[in-house]
Amino acid sequence: MDTERCLVIARFQPFHYGHLNAIEYCYRNYDEVIIVVGMASQSHTPENPFTAGERLLMIRGALKWAGHDLSRYVTVTLPTLEVNRAAVHFVRQYSPPFKSVVTLNPIIQRLFMEEGYEVIPPPVKERDTYSGSAIRRMMLANDPSWKQLVPPPVAEIIERIGGVERIRMLYSERLPGYYATA
Amino acid sequence: MDTERCLVIARFQPFHYGHLNAIEYCYRNYDEVIIVVGMASQSHTPENPFTAGERLLMIRGALKWAGHDLSRYVTVTLPTLEVNRAAVHFVRQYSPPFKSVVTLNPIIQRLFMEEGYEVIPPPVKERDTYSGSAIRRMMLANDPSWKQLVPPPVAEIIERIGGVERIRMLYSERLPGYYATA
Amino acid sequence: MDTERCLVIARFQPFHYGHLNAIEYCYRNYDEVIIVVGMASQSHTPENPFTAGERLLMIRGALKWAGHDLSRYVTVTLPTLEVNRAAVHFVRQYSPPFKSVVTLNPIIQRLFMEEGYEVIPPPVKERDTYSGSAIRRMMLANDPSWKQLVPPPVAEIIERIGGVERIRMLYSERLPGYYATA
Amino acid sequence: MDTERCLVIARFQPFHYGHLNAIEYCYRNYDEVIIVVGMASQSHTPENPFTAGERLLMIRGALKWAGHDLSRYVTVTLPTLEVNRAAVHFVRQYSPPFKSVVTLNPIIQRLFMEEGYEVIPPPVKERDTYSGSAIRRMMLANDPSWKQLVPPPVAEIIERIGGVERIRMLYSERLPGYYATA
Amino acid sequence: MDTERCLVIARFQPFHYGHLNAIEYCYRNYDEVIIVVGMASQSHTPENPFTAGERLLMIRGALKWAGHDLSRYVTVTLPTLEVNRAAVHFVRQYSPPFKSVVTLNPIIQRLFMEEGYEVIPPPVKERDTYSGSAIRRMMLANDPSWKQLVPPPVAEIIERIGGVERIRMLYSERLPGYYATA
Amino acid sequence: MDTERCLVIARFQPFHYGHLNAIEYCYRNYDEVIIVVGMASQSHTPENPFTAGERLLMIRGALKWAGHDLSRYVTVTLPTLEVNRAAVHFVRQYSPPFKSVVTLNPIIQRLFMEEGYEVIPPPVKERDTYSGSAIRRMMLANDPSWKQLVPPPVAEIIERIGGVERIRMLYSERLPGYYATA
Repeated sequence: MDTERCLVIARFQPFHYGHLNAIEYCYRNYDEVIIVVGMASQSHTPENPFTAGERLLMIRGALKWAGHDLSRYVTVTLPTLEVNRAAVHFVRQYSPPFKSVVTLNPIIQRLFMEEGYEVIPPPVKERDTYSGSAIRRMMLANDPSWKQLVPPPVAEIIERIGGVERIRMLYSERLPGYYATA
Repeated sequence: MDTERCLVIARFQPFHYGHLNAIEYCYRNYDEVIIVVGMASQSHTPENPFTAGERLLMIRGALKWAGHDLSRYVTVTLPTLEVNRAAVHFVRQYSPPFKSVVTLNPIIQRLFMEEGYEVIPPPVKERDTYSGSAIRRMMLANDPSWKQLVPPPVAEIIERIGGVERIRMLYSERLPGYYATA
Repeated sequence: MDTERCLVIARFQPFHYGHLNAIEYCYRNYDEVIIVVGMASQSHTPENPFTAGERLLMIRGALKWAGHDLSRYVTVTLPTLEVNRAAVHFVRQYSPPFKSVVTLNPIIQRLFMEEGYEVIPPPVKERDTYSGSAIRRMMLANDPSWKQLVPPPVAEIIERIGGVERIRMLYSERLPGYYATA
Repeated sequence: MDTERCLVIARFQPFHYGHLNAIEYCYRNYDEVIIVVGMASQSHTPENPFTAGERLLMIRGALKWAGHDLSRYVTVTLPTLEVNRAAVHFVRQYSPPFKSVVTLNPIIQRLFMEEGYEVIPPPVKERDTYSGSAIRRMMLANDPSWKQLVPPPVAEIIERIGGVERIRMLYSERLPGYYATA
Repeated sequence: MDTERCLVIARFQPFHYGHLNAIEYCYRNYDEVIIVVGMASQSHTPENPFTAGERLLMIRGALKWAGHDLSRYVTVTLPTLEVNRAAVHFVRQYSPPFKSVVTLNPIIQRLFMEEGYEVIPPPVKERDTYSGSAIRRMMLANDPSWKQLVPPPVAEIIERIGGVERIRMLYSERLPGYYATA
Repeated sequence: MDTERCLVIARFQPFHYGHLNAIEYCYRNYDEVIIVVGMASQSHTPENPFTAGERLLMIRGALKWAGHDLSRYVTVTLPTLEVNRAAVHFVRQYSPPFKSVVTLNPIIQRLFMEEGYEVIPPPVKERDTYSGSAIRRMMLANDPSWKQLVPPPVAEIIERIGGVERIRMLYSERLPGYYATA
């Protein structure tokens, strides 16, 4: 098959401009872009407040807003995995064949590299400015500037589902059960 | 949100015209169609020979061939679950909000109904003519008429990955590990 | 602690007179009876059609009908486990301390014996006359005599939740996912 | 069905007067009370030092001491779950039907509300005075006043099984394996 | 590192001459041999009657009997896995680096080949004569000739632990829980 | 069976002189030593940076260097388990029969004692001087004295696989997924 694909993997908690920039690189240079929503089986935790379904809404809303042709995107939802070297190959199980990988997380970059994939590092500046955990901390601190870090449709969706209130509650309490700490 | 969505859930082992007809109903009547690839974590078993990634290729290839606009589709990959009533809500965790459900499996139909969803049953004829297990049996029996039950791009993908040979091998042997029997 | 307890473990799919007789032995000879509902996480499969909650309703309904004092019963719901020798000790994790074990399944009898528990075998006749799988087969065959094998409140509950219809559907179709074959 | 049930869900690490007060509300206003022991599959961790079986002993001891009729209680033991929205429905799988939910955890309150259940919040004062983690911290600090926060039979059981010593050990070391952080 | 290793993967239910022959090939041609005991987390099922610990005893007993130097063997115990393409890489996670793979199962052969490993097929004759399921069927049929298919120390261990009796019991009954069908 | 075995259980992240001393006690006093590599399914986390395969290399390299006869060692790889009392019996499932247990972790010591095993505590001094987490902290702090705490072949293997660099990366970032905190 001649279709060339780039895979972007993240948790998107929430989707922000750092994600958008990384995805845009793929969108401009490949036939199709595979977006892997990691830890899809987790929600309502401080680190993973949004369901996979809510995250898919954010992703699609942002890409439409950016003027992208959604037909060139393939979405994949990956359950929470135990961390180990085999995880790279679990991604392969869920995803159409891909040539390159883009991710903001340097350890995921390295794991895919070690397994022989071409890994494209996004500009370092991105990581400093945009980060899901920074955005969640702003929400906790009642700092509305988090809205400048996400595309407008993402802010809208978060407001419609009461996302800020949910995150505040999740940081003050915890649900009993398995959490991931990433 | 005003976008109305229809959810189609199946294992797509492989994608066949029965799936296409069910999906087409949604495509004509809803803004967006969510396609849930069930048992995505399983492959290389007699009942689930293809990886989720291969199944996504088949689905997208067939829908493109049918002239559909892929930007109105959202794909979701669901790991193998233990069978119980909560499974309906696990689908909800992975998926954007949806109003209606289409599935060829009458028990899934019923489970979603019991949980309050509108369930649209596809024409009964579909189920008799098109079925993944019937197609796999034809492949085993060296009967090439299975190709008439799947859209041309699906047959092409199966040939390219040596799918018929893989299925024959899987029915003669078994890998040690967890299998689902559906 | 001086309270002496007897543990009864079964899947109760559905609760029948064989279960009742085994439990009655414990009820007459021990201070408290622990009832372990096995494979509680599974439902809507041919072998495990009823949810753990439905099974708890059947158990309590039958024991009340038999005139037992429910305050001497402790119910425990055990998820589906991988079969191995450690499973005996998983039961211990979930249950108050117990001295004796009663079960209709000879292999569970033996596993508990190998781990040093006193195991009380119910009369062999019980196993021939009463069996969950025999009852489910009667339901499939439209043979109403299954009602003679279960206490009246169990038959009532099964009717109220459409249990016979559910079982027929589950034997004709299957849900995709993990099944246990016991 | 005419039996009205109230469901109380907690980890009971250990059972304290806050739990008792919440349960008493249900006991006075409903036919039956379902007590769900959460994270039953975990023990010997700092947050979950006691086995589910030990917790059932505490619960029953305390309710007997409070003069309650145990025959109106149904106990359910729920394994540790991954945190997500579907967890509410996993509780439903394990439990007889219930109308209302009482829990001290505001996020569990909210999750059940979002899924359409009537949720009864216990008085806020309860949460400040009584808390499992506060009790465990007192034990660590060698502060005997924890005994004033739990019914006498609970203190007795904890002493008999060397619970305080176990908790101190668990906070100083850790067992290798999966922990929940709630 | 210059040590060259060959990996042998099987369930060893029980260890037989087919396994020994395959292992001997590795023993003669490589510095070290990695023996992977598959489905180690399962026991007391018809297909996996022996615990991983019992299987390790058989393997070591047989190799000692064959005059091999045990210091050149590395044993690895692998839990039951869901069947999929990533399983090959889960083996890699558990095992020191290896160059070649020997297995009697043609599908495992193929999976390792697809992932780029050198796979050495044992002589076909082996598979026809020696097979774990054939041995278990002989035990069921009270046919003592199974002892000719396993090295003497394996027969001894099976007798000491009452293995034949266990297998007969497991085929007549079943434990409730997850089974693998391989 | 007359072979007397001692079981040593640890995570070996990495293998250090404290492990070697504990193992040597078993080696001198028992026929065979079972080495259980705990949390084998986890790698690339701050607490479990090395794969089980890498840890087996370290263990065998160190024992060879110490002049031990490797044929008297049995290695077992144990997946990450949920923490509870049944875990002791999961070890038994994976391991040949053993009489005594040696471990540096006082809680594992106690759990095995409660289950009736003879537990041999290593000298307390060992625990203060040698510890996996202390070694990993030295690596983070660029303090080369960690090499004095591990046998030379362990230091060599860590260097060959870039272990120090991997640990530094893992402490600065995290992979999304399940972590154990031990």
